[in-house]
Amino acid sequence: MRGEEGNSAEENLETKEGTPSSEDERYIHKVSVPPKQKLFQEIKSGVKETFFPDDPLRSFKDQTNRRKFILGTRAVFPILEWGRDYNISKFRGDVIAGLTIASLCIPQDIGYAKLANLPPEYGLYSSFVPPLIYALMGSSRDIAIGPVAVVSLLLGAMLQAEIDSATNAEEYRRLIFTATFFAGITQATLGVLRLGFLIDFLSHAAIVGFMGGAAITIALQQLKGFLGIKNFTKKTDIISVMQSVFGTMQHGWNWQTIVIAATFLCFLLFAKFTGKRNKKLFWVPAIAPLISVVLSTLLVYLTRADKQGVAIVKHIKRGINPPSVKELYFSGQYLLKGLKIGVVAGMVALTEAVAIGRTFAAMKDYQIDGNKEMVAMGVMNVVGSMTSCYVATGSFSRSAVNYMAGCQTAVSNIVMSLVVVLTLAFITPLFKYTPNAILSAIIINAVINLVDLHAAKLIWKIDKFDFVACMGAFLGVIFFSVEMGLLIAVSISFAKILLQVTRPRTALLGKIPRTTVYRNIHQYPEATKVPGVLIVRVDSAIYFSNSNYIKERILRWLVDEEELTKESYQNKIQFLIVEMSPVTDIDTSGIHALEELNGSLKKREIQLILANPGPVVIHKLHASEFADLIGQDHIFLTVADAVSSCSPKIMNDV
Amino acid sequence: MRGEEGNSAEENLETKEGTPSSEDERYIHKVSVPPKQKLFQEIKSGVKETFFPDDPLRSFKDQTNRRKFILGTRAVFPILEWGRDYNISKFRGDVIAGLTIASLCIPQDIGYAKLANLPPEYGLYSSFVPPLIYALMGSSRDIAIGPVAVVSLLLGAMLQAEIDSATNAEEYRRLIFTATFFAGITQATLGVLRLGFLIDFLSHAAIVGFMGGAAITIALQQLKGFLGIKNFTKKTDIISVMQSVFGTMQHGWNWQTIVIAATFLCFLLFAKFTGKRNKKLFWVPAIAPLISVVLSTLLVYLTRADKQGVAIVKHIKRGINPPSVKELYFSGQYLLKGLKIGVVAGMVALTEAVAIGRTFAAMKDYQIDGNKEMVAMGVMNVVGSMTSCYVATGSFSRSAVNYMAGCQTAVSNIVMSLVVVLTLAFITPLFKYTPNAILSAIIINAVINLVDLHAAKLIWKIDKFDFVACMGAFLGVIFFSVEMGLLIAVSISFAKILLQVTRPRTALLGKIPRTTVYRNIHQYPEATKVPGVLIVRVDSAIYFSNSNYIKERILRWLVDEEELTKESYQNKIQFLIVEMSPVTDIDTSGIHALEELNGSLKKREIQLILANPGPVVIHKLHASEFADLIGQDHIFLTVADAVSSCSPKIMNDV
Repeated sequence: MRGEEGNSAEENLETKEGTPSSEDERYIHKVSVPPKQKLFQEIKSGVKETFFPDDPLRSFKDQTNRRKFILGTRAVFPILEWGRDYNISKFRGDVIAGLTIASLCIPQDIGYAKLANLPPEYGLYSSFVPPLIYALMGSSRDIAIGPVAVVSLLLGAMLQAEIDSATNAEEYRRLIFTATFFAGITQATLGVLRLGFLIDFLSHAAIVGFMGGAAITIALQQLKGFLGIKNFTKKTDIISVMQSVFGTMQHGWNWQTIVIAATFLCFLLFAKFTGKRNKKLFWVPAIAPLISVVLSTLLVYLTRADKQGVAIVKHIKRGINPPSVKELYFSGQYLLKGLKIGVVAGMVALTEAVAIGRTFAAMKDYQIDGNKEMVAMGVMNVVGSMTSCYVATGSFSRSAVNYMAGCQTAVSNIVMSLVVVLTLAFITPLFKYTPNAILSAIIINAVINLVDLHAAKLIWKIDKFDFVACMGAFLGVIFFSVEMGLLIAVSISFAKILLQVTRPRTALLGKIPRTTVYRNIHQYPEATKVPGVLIVRVDSAIYFSNSNYIKERILRWLVDEEELTKESYQNKIQFLIVEMSPVTDIDTSGIHALEELNGSLKKREIQLILANPGPVVIHKLHASEFADLIGQDHIFLTVADAVSSCSPKIMNDV
Repeated sequence: MRGEEGNSAEENLETKEGTPSSEDERYIHKVSVPPKQKLFQEIKSGVKETFFPDDPLRSFKDQTNRRKFILGTRAVFPILEWGRDYNISKFRGDVIAGLTIASLCIPQDIGYAKLANLPPEYGLYSSFVPPLIYALMGSSRDIAIGPVAVVSLLLGAMLQAEIDSATNAEEYRRLIFTATFFAGITQATLGVLRLGFLIDFLSHAAIVGFMGGAAITIALQQLKGFLGIKNFTKKTDIISVMQSVFGTMQHGWNWQTIVIAATFLCFLLFAKFTGKRNKKLFWVPAIAPLISVVLSTLLVYLTRADKQGVAIVKHIKRGINPPSVKELYFSGQYLLKGLKIGVVAGMVALTEAVAIGRTFAAMKDYQIDGNKEMVAMGVMNVVGSMTSCYVATGSFSRSAVNYMAGCQTAVSNIVMSLVVVLTLAFITPLFKYTPNAILSAIIINAVINLVDLHAAKLIWKIDKFDFVACMGAFLGVIFFSVEMGLLIAVSISFAKILLQVTRPRTALLGKIPRTTVYRNIHQYPEATKVPGVLIVRVDSAIYFSNSNYIKERILRWLVDEEELTKESYQNKIQFLIVEMSPVTDIDTSGIHALEELNGSLKKREIQLILANPGPVVIHKLHASEFADLIGQDHIFLTVADAVSSCSPKIMNDV
């Protein structure tokens, strides 16, 4: 085709630079071997890219020690950074947002504490200390901190399996603080060791499924309060719950309770609908729960419906968080159990918080340092565990309200926290007549949002394997248990990664008419094969896990192609060009596979040619002397160059 | 640059096809969306590529049922296939090879049985039945089947931890048969379920390290026989062994034994050296062990050195394999233990056999079906477990001798097996005076080859991370235990895979002078950036495990570049081109990351442009409507096209 120009490359070298013309296409450029890095350099850059891809010490470069100290303190406490620009207008936004999320969080907290099998005040405790710590150390401006439904359910289910909360309330409480402590330690450790990327191993699809399943499980649990059932199963799977519900239908349901619950659930759903229709009315769904609580409490108080069997909250302890540092288990059998549950709860809580942080940071376009966030979360939960709080994290629903109410900084969390303290100190006795049914309605209303049908549909459209992971997690949570759903989600995610690295794609390339571009002939049916030459692209790094597969796949392409050429009396294949652009790395197994491939090709009198090996690959090809084995002149910068080098040797040209 | 031609593409469409000229470079080709596959088709092709990449049913297509049955039988018993072309000249080669490996295997088998803490005849048993079964079902022509050193050591070490072979010989034997049974079941199951790729997860580097460590451990164990020590530790780690060796130096060593062992070891090493120097003398090292046995036995018999404390074999039971099917544990505590040990031993044995099969198949250029091989290995070990054999597999040293002796088919295994039977039936009493020392010398001589310093050096040169895996496995075996070494090897291999998918590479591209080729500017320092345009290549599929990293890495490239342009008063970056060629797949998390990237870029008034998305990716970009979000006209076939579309909009052109 144009191989004859291949040798005139040297003359072309003199062409004036900076004036590219398409003639220069014919100049065959050599594949460069980049300057070799020293071993230490290589290891250093590898470690840096793995653990410090965000270059966190960048701002510390070339600073005095004093300045480094100040920067370091600011890095740990971002409030020192943004606090300097804080002004009255920002404060106004934060106060409004803080009051709004406080009105939302108080009824939710009381309900979530029940999900975790704790007395209601512990939910409020957990909305006091953690948000304050987060405000000092966190870098997200929009996240609203406190107990959340899914983590409460997870903790409740896992702890109930160890200790019965009804009969052993004190030990149960001690274990939940221990778990919270270790959840915090886990989070902080991941952050400090810069292992934040570990939570990326829970795929988006798995999270959608898990959250959806958890939401439905939580909603089903609320049927106890909603229907006024007294003897309700402690299990969370749908079958046990349904048996519990319908087994008590005859004489376990309480119609007064159902009326109250259904009425207010309709009110809450209507409020949510209003807020969705008109974004300016975002505050309607935000304060609707508090209004429901107030109205229903008044109603029960006035009608004394509690005497008719409507279950009420009865007693919320007044006063702020008591210290609980002495209640942590640091020895005995519960130490290990607390550790195990804490690690799981800590990871799940992190996943949720990091997802929220990233979402809102992307919306307002600021950067969040995932590892720093984890340290903040960790410290907040460790301190929480010592002040009678259980695992707190970022809440989807409250963070969204916080954002829409115009929060500017984490000060909105401080405002919310102060409102919660005032509530604890003065108002809790007023909750005495609040019906449990209203809390159930509030929780159902809150968790419904976690069932993301739209996302599930999109996942189905985009990636079927992802959908399997999503449904696996969803069904696992609903039919077995929360932990089982989580396990399924993680397993499927891992299986996907393993499949990906074991069975990478390969493609046959053809020449796109009127260009020198070679592309996948499956994608571009108009692309034409070059007679006598087979061009294969390998779409992955070649590692031990796939090197044999790649070798055998290439040989299979070759066999298929040879059959075709035989049938159509075309030229015999004489050259196999492997397009290496996507091959970012190769290891010793990969080099072996290439050697074996080359051996097999030699036996068939086919020349192996490589196109565009990357910097790492070309290094290793030289180090292993494979480059010399196939000949330096059989490595080209582009497929087009490689093809033109073949053409003089193929008798019947195109 | 040449964007003005971009719009004249339509006219160019009429250019005669098949006469490419470099003018056509200017024709901007659209990115094709390949015809959409039906859901069922998609799943089918995914499953096929994962489990049937070698298309095993290919020959069954379009055949009558009778023909299918014949082909199926032949697939299970390849001997029916190659047996039809068998002739006298092949038989001659096989007989010579069979006799050679028999002479090698008999002394080795006796020694290996000791490694597995079994009486010597069990080694010979295992060289009788399994090779026969393999000859019927196996597809490798060169592999020599029988007990091997590493698997014997592994079984011995793991079983000894459960039952003491000295005091409980019968139970020990029953457990080893049970383990063998489950090893066979494991192997056959992997083959039938087409999960053969699982053994690829043990990387080449890990195997080199593991084998080297096992070889040294085995050699150290032989010091017992070599030095004539009576009280020797049962542990395998180097520290216990060294304590055992030096603790007995004063009055535990036997000088007569040492003289015999050292003399014959020198002889064996010299024979090996001779065989290496002159490939035609390959038979010298092959028969040297048998000669050593004969000579040393005669020597001991004549001098009655056994009375001087030279340990001798004493007794090998005469007669062929007794049935052992009733000895298998199918219930009780040993069932689970046997299962566990069997799974591990089965996997390790497979790894060795498959590596050997592939190596020799590549040398003679024939295909081996890994999954079919596994079934053959599995059946062979299941039958073996019922006929008093322990785990057999392919031996590196004997297969090499088999190959060099000119074996043609698996008939050489049958010949070897017959020689072993004759030995069992008639000759075993003659081994009575064989000194144990000679067996130790033979084993040391055999396992030395497994320490592959050359491979380790190459691994160091090619890939430092691989070297860590290699040394981890090596040191794990030597300093802890065989299982620990294996565990380290597998863990490091997995960690590597996870790192690979979490931290894929990205690269900045620049234009190589006098071409329209864009390449990594790190590899090609002469490549020039295009002012106002940042071109980033992502070198991996974008999945949940790396989508966030990729997004943040691209933004970091952008920030770095913007700082540079600011310093040098260049054009502000207005376009970000992401070269997608290596991106073979994207999942929902990946699409989300792209959406967030696009959002961040919009805020900075930078246009996102994609170059050359592959078939799967372009599908998903359309399915998720991301293609519409950034605009179809911002997706190009090549980087060059993408750049030329930007240039009219950038004020100061090149």
